[in-house]
Amino acid sequence: VAILLHNNGYGDHEWHQALSHALPEHNIVRFVDGPLSKAQCAEIEFAVIWDHPVGDLANYPNLQGVLLLGAGTERLDRDSSVPLVPIARLIDPAVLQDMAHYALYWVMDLQRGYLQYRAQQALSQWHRHPSRAVADFQVTVLGLGPVGSAVAQQLQLNGYQVKGWSKSQHHLKGIECFHTTEQLPTALHNTDVLINCLPLNSNTEQFIDAQLLSKLPKGASLISISRANVLSEQALFDCLASAHVQRAILDVFEQEPLSKNAPHWQHPQITVTPHISGATYARTAAILIAADIRKIQRNEQPSYPHQHPAHLVLA
Amino acid sequence: VAILLHNNGYGDHEWHQALSHALPEHNIVRFVDGPLSKAQCAEIEFAVIWDHPVGDLANYPNLQGVLLLGAGTERLDRDSSVPLVPIARLIDPAVLQDMAHYALYWVMDLQRGYLQYRAQQALSQWHRHPSRAVADFQVTVLGLGPVGSAVAQQLQLNGYQVKGWSKSQHHLKGIECFHTTEQLPTALHNTDVLINCLPLNSNTEQFIDAQLLSKLPKGASLISISRANVLSEQALFDCLASAHVQRAILDVFEQEPLSKNAPHWQHPQITVTPHISGATYARTAAILIAADIRKIQRNEQPSYPHQHPAHLVLA
Repeated sequence: VAILLHNNGYGDHEWHQALSHALPEHNIVRFVDGPLSKAQCAEIEFAVIWDHPVGDLANYPNLQGVLLLGAGTERLDRDSSVPLVPIARLIDPAVLQDMAHYALYWVMDLQRGYLQYRAQQALSQWHRHPSRAVADFQVTVLGLGPVGSAVAQQLQLNGYQVKGWSKSQHHLKGIECFHTTEQLPTALHNTDVLINCLPLNSNTEQFIDAQLLSKLPKGASLISISRANVLSEQALFDCLASAHVQRAILDVFEQEPLSKNAPHWQHPQITVTPHISGATYARTAAILIAADIRKIQRNEQPSYPHQHPAHLVLA
Repeated sequence: VAILLHNNGYGDHEWHQALSHALPEHNIVRFVDGPLSKAQCAEIEFAVIWDHPVGDLANYPNLQGVLLLGAGTERLDRDSSVPLVPIARLIDPAVLQDMAHYALYWVMDLQRGYLQYRAQQALSQWHRHPSRAVADFQVTVLGLGPVGSAVAQQLQLNGYQVKGWSKSQHHLKGIECFHTTEQLPTALHNTDVLINCLPLNSNTEQFIDAQLLSKLPKGASLISISRANVLSEQALFDCLASAHVQRAILDVFEQEPLSKNAPHWQHPQITVTPHISGATYARTAAILIAADIRKIQRNEQPSYPHQHPAHLVLA
């Protein structure tokens, strides 16, 4: 059995090692070392991929499963020629914890006004500001999949008021959960910090637009950690200019790495981090991927199955 | 019944209002409006104070209790002439939560390397660093009184490895607790971040000195949120210069406000915050003080009793 590995250059060597270690009985073939012969293609039973060329997965006649190297599926979703095999998302608890911590850190930063204290230190200025009570500080999480749920629960655990909104209904302890377009204004009402945890698909592209942002109270802030294209950058820049949105903490961008000339870097109301809210480490993730491969081999569902692109129902 | 209020100018008017509201049957007399006549002194049954002149409390013949406006007792401890009445520390759960959040925020800042990401943004630089796993990141809390316990538990709740050290033995779920001088090196071993939550008294003055800091691994960081004089500033500056200590986050200083010329402000390894880790709000704290006054009136112990200065046993 051979496994095709394609991580678009993100630590390919490390991934090759980690997968070889987790699946010692399998032959790990790196896509970047290709092109593969017909005989080699016939040996491939699993594809461990991220941003793979549309159409290529049709070249492996014995493919039994596709394992994504992340939680997002928007790249695979473009490819309706993928063979009808199980598709697994990679949901690593360590990555969820890191993303939840990232969100918590920036919510604390906004609630306590640490930006001001850093500016004051640069000016050798001793000045205290009253800060809002944790229990009165309202955070709203858009998207309640594995990432959004982890974020919402971490904030709730630390005493914040948390609301969540998602396309489908969710129930999370201590969190007011909303769904449907009708409930969106209620979810956004009184929000101090809005956190974008929505997946990117044709329903969510530019979902956070001028109209949605206008439903936030003046002075709210935004944290975006899922996908940049869920957010209308133009709408965000307009809202920052009018101070309707006070600050934006952005970890994801339409183009990554963010170009040197991008206006985000030096914008006084924007914090840029280089897509580090949750980093996937090959050593731990390879174990999860190996477990999903063995599940598929036993005809079981992977831990986080994803619908085949050809079957996606997009409203 | 009259109550003497002296908060050294920190929101005296607000405190007067809040205490009057919480204790409508009592007359609140502000010390700063004095001097009081003999007749007025005779009416004072409770003193709600912070940094009060040594010797003054002996002037109130009918004093029944002393209520401190904070958790620290070092100012009262200097005054052995205080009448032998119950002494109550103010331990406000809202303040404990704020201090625990402060510690958590800065531990996260250190673990994830946000200082570097801020510096990179200023240079429009996209660069990712690997970061240490939460579960491998070792935080050690010195002092396990109400503040230290709250800090240790908040960090443990969020997945950090937490050790605690205190003069007396403590048991906290999920936290390795140490005590005695003999166990101090074990507590400091492998520490990534040391948090000073020790009270100030003659046992702890300059307790965090060159010798103690030398027992930390090279590259550890320090967060100080209780009292500045627990820490030898000279030892800290020396350790920062040799990079034995990587960074220090200081919320408390020998002299507050920290003077404009203090070397802390512009030190690249020091973060200064103006004693804001836990701010006491009159509105909520006055309710706790009123409850303690009523307890003392019923001959009950206040919630957090403190030993009379004349009886303090200092080793």
